[in-house]
Parts: sequence; C-alpha cells; structure tokens
Amino acid sequence: MRIILDTMGSDNGSYEFVKGAVLAAEDLDVDLVLVGNEKELCAHLSKEDPQGKYRKNISVIHASEVVDMHDDPLKVMKEKPDSSMTVALRTLSEGKGDALVSAGNTGALLTQATLIVKRIRGIRRAALAPVIPSATGIAVLIDSGANAECTPEYLYQFALMGSYYAEHALGVKAPKVGLLNNGTEEHKGDEVHREANRILTEAGQRGEINYIGNIEGRDGPLGKADVIVADGFSGNVYLKTMEGVGMFFARELKNMFMASFKGKLAGLMVKGDVAAFKKKIDYNDAGGAPLLGVKKPVIKAHGSSKAKSIYHCIIQAIDYIDSGMTIHLERSLKGENAADE
Amino acid sequence: MRIILDTMGSDNGSYEFVKGAVLAAEDLDVDLVLVGNEKELCAHLSKEDPQGKYRKNISVIHASEVVDMHDDPLKVMKEKPDSSMTVALRTLSEGKGDALVSAGNTGALLTQATLIVKRIRGIRRAALAPVIPSATGIAVLIDSGANAECTPEYLYQFALMGSYYAEHALGVKAPKVGLLNNGTEEHKGDEVHREANRILTEAGQRGEINYIGNIEGRDGPLGKADVIVADGFSGNVYLKTMEGVGMFFARELKNMFMASFKGKLAGLMVKGDVAAFKKKIDYNDAGGAPLLGVKKPVIKAHGSSKAKSIYHCIIQAIDYIDSGMTIHLERSLKGENAADE
Repeated sequence: MRIILDTMGSDNGSYEFVKGAVLAAEDLDVDLVLVGNEKELCAHLSKEDPQGKYRKNISVIHASEVVDMHDDPLKVMKEKPDSSMTVALRTLSEGKGDALVSAGNTGALLTQATLIVKRIRGIRRAALAPVIPSATGIAVLIDSGANAECTPEYLYQFALMGSYYAEHALGVKAPKVGLLNNGTEEHKGDEVHREANRILTEAGQRGEINYIGNIEGRDGPLGKADVIVADGFSGNVYLKTMEGVGMFFARELKNMFMASFKGKLAGLMVKGDVAAFKKKIDYNDAGGAPLLGVKKPVIKAHGSSKAKSIYHCIIQAIDYIDSGMTIHLERSLKGENAADE
Repeated sequence: MRIILDTMGSDNGSYEFVKGAVLAAEDLDVDLVLVGNEKELCAHLSKEDPQGKYRKNISVIHASEVVDMHDDPLKVMKEKPDSSMTVALRTLSEGKGDALVSAGNTGALLTQATLIVKRIRGIRRAALAPVIPSATGIAVLIDSGANAECTPEYLYQFALMGSYYAEHALGVKAPKVGLLNNGTEEHKGDEVHREANRILTEAGQRGEINYIGNIEGRDGPLGKADVIVADGFSGNVYLKTMEGVGMFFARELKNMFMASFKGKLAGLMVKGDVAAFKKKIDYNDAGGAPLLGVKKPVIKAHGSSKAKSIYHCIIQAIDYIDSGMTIHLERSLKGENAADE
C-alpha cells in the first residue's frame, strides 16, 4: 500500500510530515510518497532517517509551489498548477498511490479533489466526515462543512457513505444513523430536512442503514448516534461548537486546578485522568477527516497536525483503503458520472 | 409591576411556580398572577405562605386545561381554549400584567404568543433568545429555534433585538454582535447568510449595532461575541450541542473523581470549584429565554425549571420590562402590523 502525503501548506511545516512518515514506515507495512519541496524534504529525511533505513519505503516527488490558507479554492489550480496539493492529487489520480493525506487549505483540497480525483459515479457531492468523540466512544459527522447547501438526496448519500465508513473502516456494527435537526419530532426542520428524514426512514425500512430518526445537537455528544448526518452548514456549527465548548471547559478545568494550593494538589492527584480526559475529547487526536465520495481515499488532516497526527492519518488512510468503500459505492450506486457536474 | 405565571404544563408541576412566586414576593417589589388550576394553586399557596403574608401580592386566575408537550402548537388554541397558557397570554394581552413566564410547550407558546400578544409593529418574526454562558461571561443567542427558516431581514431584526436586549436588559455596553456562519470569511455560508452578513455590515457602519462579522461555532463559547445571531435551525444546533457537550463533560468529570480513592479525595478538595464550574456552564441557571419581538415580555422557562429558576425568570422579566425594549422597537421600526401576516 502506498500513501501520498501533501507535505506543504500546513501550520507546522513539512518536517512534521517527514517525521510522521518515518514513524509509519517503522511501524506499518506501508510505502510513503512525500510531495513538496524536494530539497527541504530530503534534508528532513536525512535528519529523521540518517542511515537511510526507510529510503526504500519513502519516496519524494518535487512540487515547486505551496497552497496557503489565503488562496481562493476556485482559482488555485490555475494559479498554482505545481503546488504540492495539486501534484499530490494528480499522483493519486494517476494510480501512483492508494490514498492521500493533506493538512492544507480545506476548500482548495475539496475543490481540487473533486476536479482531479473525481467523484464516485452516482455520488452528487463529496463530504468531509471527521470522527469525533462522544460519551459512548466515537461518531462520524458527515458533512462537517464541505457543502453549505444540501438537497435531501445529498443527505441520503451522506448517510450511506457515513454508515459504510463507520462499519467498514471503524468497525462499528450496524451503526446507528441520525439526522441532525432542530428537534427529534418528524415535523422538525426546514423542507430539506423533513424530506431527508422521510427518505432516510424509507432507507432504514429497506435495511440500507440503521436509521434512528432525527437527532438534536445534544444527542451527538451523548452518544446516541454513530453517524451524524448533517448539511455542511449545521454540521460545521456542530463541530466548531463542540470544539469551542471543549476549549472553554479545558480552560475552566485548568483554572480550577490552578486557583489554589489545594487545587494544584488535587490536579496532581488526577493528572493522569485529566490527560486521558483531554485525549478523549480532542477530536484532532483521532486522525483527520476523510473526504468521502471521491474515487480514492483522501484524508484532510488538521492544519496544525504534528507528526503523531500525521501518523494516525496514515493509519486512517490504510483503514479507509481496506474498507473497500469506493469500490462498494461504485458498484451499488447508479447514476451519471460525477465529472459532468 | 405584575408578572403572570403560566403554572401548568411544565415537567415539575405547579408547586415549583408557587414556591418561586413566594420567593419573588419575599425578595422583590413585584406582584404575581398565578394562572392554572385554582384549587391546586391555593393548596400550594397555603403550604408555602401559611400566614397569607403575600396574599396581597399573589393572585390566582383559574384555567381548566393544560397544554402538554404532545399538543400540536398550531391546533392547541382551538382545542384547549381554556388552557393555562392561553389564559395567561390573554391576561397579558389585556394589560392585566406586564410580563409572562411559562415553562410549557415551546412551540405552543411561540405560536400563541404571536397570535394573542402579537408581534411588535414591523417585526417579521419573534425569536427565542436564551442567555448562555461563555468563557468571558454571557452571550445572547438569537434565534435558538423559533424559526427554522430565516430571511436576511429576519436575521437583521434578530441582531437589533439581541443587541438591544444585551445592552438594556443585561447591561452589556456596545455588545459585540456576530453572525453564526460556517466560517468567518465574507464568502462563507449560503445565500441567506451571505446577504445577512452584508446587511449587518452596513448596519454596523451606520452605527446601529457593533457588528464584528461572521463567527464560527467555536467563537461563541470562547466569548468572542455578546450577541450570537443565528437562524433558528443552526441556533438550535448550537444551543443543543453546547448542552450535550456540557453533560458529556460533567459525566466525564464525575467519573474522573469517582475512579479511585485518590480521585475521590481530589474531588473533595475541589468540590466548591466544581460546583462553581457547573453553575457557570449551566445555562438553565441563568433564567429562561426571552421571546423577543412580541409586544410584551414573554419568558420561556426551561421545562424542568425548579422554584429557583422560576424566581430567576421573574427577575429576568422585570429586567426585560425595565429595558423598555418593546416601546423602543415600536418607535424605531417602521412597517406593517405583524397581525396581518
């Protein structure tokens, strides 16, 4: 298996990617293709793998440009045709790798992945599906922001993709699928969500998914659903609110343990538990967000990913490939080629 | 000042209302009108105020029916014309009280308040505006679920109402107003949110509000805005996600302190801080959600409100009346009468 890494354009630079790649080469049966500034990458490699132990597993492809956070997703392919992101996606599309991990500009990655790697035949929209923590373990949130506006059909396809991913990449049996709405009753939501709820109910009755109905924002963190189907607008609100509340609470917790001598002592006593708790609520730690719906696995790593996160994203890419999802979807869906949209 | 309490249809029964009313009569310069089953209410009153010390401040109006959580908001006024909610709203509309507190069916309260009390002239939609905790204090979230579908004009009016409420009822000077979107950049969101952002930017330039632009879900808990303007769908997702994450964290925290002897000891040492923390993050503790945009102050208390919450809602109702908001809005807005919509 060969995983392509777009090493440029993240917050922490290409070094973290090289470090993550060496970690992966050490631990896993995988080859890695680093795309970026060749000189820079080779220098990092000499440092991380001084004896060239993994040189047979790690190759480098040069790209002269970098997509940054300010680049317009719709223009970047024309303006920076030799960016590490574009080259990496082209490499994936040409079959010179099985999956791709990038920590670059999300919008640019979405747009270019759809244009270069292309959507699976019959899939209307690709969606970002981060794996997020909940009281009972984890849940897949699909879509977390790729599509601000959705049709009921998109939401139905998100449900199929999210459910397949949860079952075959994450190992959740008969994953419970819920539709994020502004209430659990059938009449809740706007027209799009009411119709989506109807379609998903039917899909549940046909046995395509294990549909549990409309869910509210609170049901996600409390672990009611394994797959949270959302339009990209409210999915993004959900994800970011969770993140914000997490940061707010982490600060409060820290203040609590720093407020007094007694507090500091108590903090020391539960230090390990606090660390485990933080790990549990930090969704970045779980890896990245797979972009579901394009023909080959693409993982969006967090912009501030460190080597350990990149390593987790590589494992996630392998699990994604092993799930056989793209092949399954191509077979099970009928419809026009995504390229014509 | 006279506050009307719809005492029926909440999770904890009318007793909590009577207890809350007696607390308020004790502490505050206020009269209270209890609407509900007269016999039941008088029995509670004899228990809570055995010497009839506050009988001159607390009156009772009988209503024979109760709106429950299963009643259809659109049919309830016809089906239960003598419900405590309907009678209470009618009492308010007839000028026999200055504000109303209800912990009943939210949808029924919204619908009936609009029909009976009516919207302020020129206001397109009434909105629920709970006061929620943030890292820097509190924020007003408007709308938290009354209107699943919004136009840019509704969002603009929510901003005006939320900003006025934050400044004049909560005492926040020049409240920072943000629009909840799926990203902070100008181009983010669907058409409604892009247009709303444009209108709000202009309103900021005219000095009507202190507009800080688009905000993300994470900006709310982190205290970036004092007023979070949202369509009712994503506002509801925001509020419920916050609530769910709060419950999830509270459980994890409890588990952490219960996991071991050392944990229990640590828990005891920071018991006061944990209680203060819980109080800070519990938005129910702050009172209820004012329904902004109708002609008289209506406060939606949480369905599971206890006496202390009802008491806080009564204070909130007084602050709302004192803010002069409805008079201010009637003067400053021009437009058709809400009744004709």
